[in-house]
Amino acid sequence: MRGWVTHLRSSGKVAFIVMRDGTGTLQAVLVKSAVPPEIWSRFAELTQETSISITGDVRMDARAPGGVEVGISNLDILGSSPIDYPIQPKEHGVDFLMDHRHLWLRSPRQQAILRVRHEVEQAIQDFFYERGFIRVDTPILTAAIGERSGLFSTEYFDEGTAYLAQTGQLYGEAAAAALGRIYTFGPTFRAEKSKTRRHLTEFWMIEPEVAFFDSNDNMRLQEDFVSFLVRRCLDRRKNELAELERDTSKLENVVPPFARLDYSDAVTLLQRKGSEIKWGDDLGAEDEALIVEEYDKPVFVMNYPKEAKAFYMKENPADPRTVLCDDCLAPEGYGEIIGGSQREDDYDKLLARIKEEGLPLDAYGWYLDLRRYGTFEHSGFGLGLERTVAWICGTPHIRETSAFPRLMNRLKP
Amino acid sequence: MRGWVTHLRSSGKVAFIVMRDGTGTLQAVLVKSAVPPEIWSRFAELTQETSISITGDVRMDARAPGGVEVGISNLDILGSSPIDYPIQPKEHGVDFLMDHRHLWLRSPRQQAILRVRHEVEQAIQDFFYERGFIRVDTPILTAAIGERSGLFSTEYFDEGTAYLAQTGQLYGEAAAAALGRIYTFGPTFRAEKSKTRRHLTEFWMIEPEVAFFDSNDNMRLQEDFVSFLVRRCLDRRKNELAELERDTSKLENVVPPFARLDYSDAVTLLQRKGSEIKWGDDLGAEDEALIVEEYDKPVFVMNYPKEAKAFYMKENPADPRTVLCDDCLAPEGYGEIIGGSQREDDYDKLLARIKEEGLPLDAYGWYLDLRRYGTFEHSGFGLGLERTVAWICGTPHIRETSAFPRLMNRLKP
Repeated sequence: MRGWVTHLRSSGKVAFIVMRDGTGTLQAVLVKSAVPPEIWSRFAELTQETSISITGDVRMDARAPGGVEVGISNLDILGSSPIDYPIQPKEHGVDFLMDHRHLWLRSPRQQAILRVRHEVEQAIQDFFYERGFIRVDTPILTAAIGERSGLFSTEYFDEGTAYLAQTGQLYGEAAAAALGRIYTFGPTFRAEKSKTRRHLTEFWMIEPEVAFFDSNDNMRLQEDFVSFLVRRCLDRRKNELAELERDTSKLENVVPPFARLDYSDAVTLLQRKGSEIKWGDDLGAEDEALIVEEYDKPVFVMNYPKEAKAFYMKENPADPRTVLCDDCLAPEGYGEIIGGSQREDDYDKLLARIKEEGLPLDAYGWYLDLRRYGTFEHSGFGLGLERTVAWICGTPHIRETSAFPRLMNRLKP
Repeated sequence: MRGWVTHLRSSGKVAFIVMRDGTGTLQAVLVKSAVPPEIWSRFAELTQETSISITGDVRMDARAPGGVEVGISNLDILGSSPIDYPIQPKEHGVDFLMDHRHLWLRSPRQQAILRVRHEVEQAIQDFFYERGFIRVDTPILTAAIGERSGLFSTEYFDEGTAYLAQTGQLYGEAAAAALGRIYTFGPTFRAEKSKTRRHLTEFWMIEPEVAFFDSNDNMRLQEDFVSFLVRRCLDRRKNELAELERDTSKLENVVPPFARLDYSDAVTLLQRKGSEIKWGDDLGAEDEALIVEEYDKPVFVMNYPKEAKAFYMKENPADPRTVLCDDCLAPEGYGEIIGGSQREDDYDKLLARIKEEGLPLDAYGWYLDLRRYGTFEHSGFGLGLERTVAWICGTPHIRETSAFPRLMNRLKP
């Protein structure tokens, strides 16, 4: 077995090595009287993170971590590790840890979070694959898509400026007209000066788009999807959730259906709880926290005022001040993990909204074409991967859910 | 059933509608004498791409496409489509089709390619998931990583300039030290003025990285991986490959092992075939085409001269002029789909190579740390998704393998 030393302990005659190999940890025992002197002497050279190769007999031992122990017959040092290894078993400041993210990843907690993220990602693929959705990769480099703020830009040959995509949705809508049910799964970018525990400048989004789905179908898909992801982690990542000391009883509650709260009722609830929100305002993070206090699983807030939401959302026939949309808020204070909506499929209404927002018409010509040639009722949503993983892991800050997180003051390593 | 009209035909008493819904096509029959006049009259309003909803009885009919036919009892028009629908059943120029990519996607050939791509993507995930690899998403926005050309750049708050990643490999190596076996799967960027049928400015790469794998293990993983992807498409995308008129007998050959050709032997072969290549040169697309002519499945060319390859590749102990690396070349003229190597794991040799290349040392400090704290033998590779899909589909130009391809003169739609 080959791996890295994590813990060392010796009585002078018997020495214990705990090592990790990326899949787990293993305890190995070196007995002075049982090996040649040159092998025994190598133990003294070991330090935390020395890479080693051991040979020996595996035996069951209930006291050892993992339930097995290896009796070492040979020990080779592959790569030494100076005693100044930066990550020590003591408290480090966040900036220090982030500066050493390439090494911090080796700690058990960070490994556990990355394994949960991995499981969520596989579950995302499986969920949609099993349901006949086609994965479509939408472009990161996009042409002028309006006056929106928070865009990273780059020079693009003779084509002018390209912007890094904030969403793949508009492209996803075109693909849904071709393929019926699609989803995107890729990185998205926000050049926003946000320093909260819920924002990254680069994060991954999953954006399904379904032809002939209305807002109601859309919320049903969302609650099935979120419940599937949580269930998968409960079933297959018990050890990691235990390492993270996650209270999994709270995740066991996450089964369909989720409560649906009309925006207007949400405002009434918030006002009753002391918020100063007025009808027409978007919900802030504090408002979301007040709402999710009332529920032990995710909750939908639906049909927001038009002015609080994006131009492409479909006008609500029952109340044209509002649009057919929903945010899905995670419990335990996590808040929004999904934003979804039925899309405006009326050519004239969409055109009017584009003009109202002052968006450049020529950039949206192809998007309007989807309403010109066989328009169709359709809906979709975007789930933020890192927020979802943070909630499932119960980790307070989103930065730990990404191997190399990008924040406004963090571009390295 | 709801969907879009693709073909129409009428005798005056019986009318046939062929429609697509994103999952397939269906033939429906409208009989004048069997429906109310207002339903029959709607047939006259139909055009290509009109979106419709039909109700009726499904019956087996061997003559109909798909083997079933629907006898229509009700027909509703959901969205009309003007007769100027741009994509007509005739030859269009490539620029015209690319300008209308959002509509071109609806054609059977483009749908088939996107479904094959989707299948390949799911197969990638499944291959690594089943083998215990952990997926790690590496950053797109990266700090200065040298003087390399072909980088897109963007302003990044107060941190200076960020560059769009050309590879996730270096980050993948850090993650392999934490998690053992990892892979990345995401978009990468090249700001290169290439106008070939094999280059996109934005394309997806899959980059596994495995602790304690040498170059030989690495090639074994590659041939297993590529064979798995091809097999999956043969098994599950028969209809799509038939739509593409792909000669699948050529894909049936793709099983391990793949031939391994030493770089020096490849040069001898090429010179014998008339190429002017000299020992020390990298292989060009034409050289690759000459080599793959000799094989009916992918072939490895391995252990290139140091100066033709990247600084991080491990020096070949058997011939220090060369490095332990391989390119995997696809047959039928497709050429390179994978570049892989064992990584230099010796701190001093890697440092010397970074200095030789004139790369900024401070940007590589964290990368050198991986050789400082428990260095380890490791190898990995990068597979280009679009090139692989182009080969499996047998499509001559890579641009059709992406829903919204980005080329140096193509940023829209």
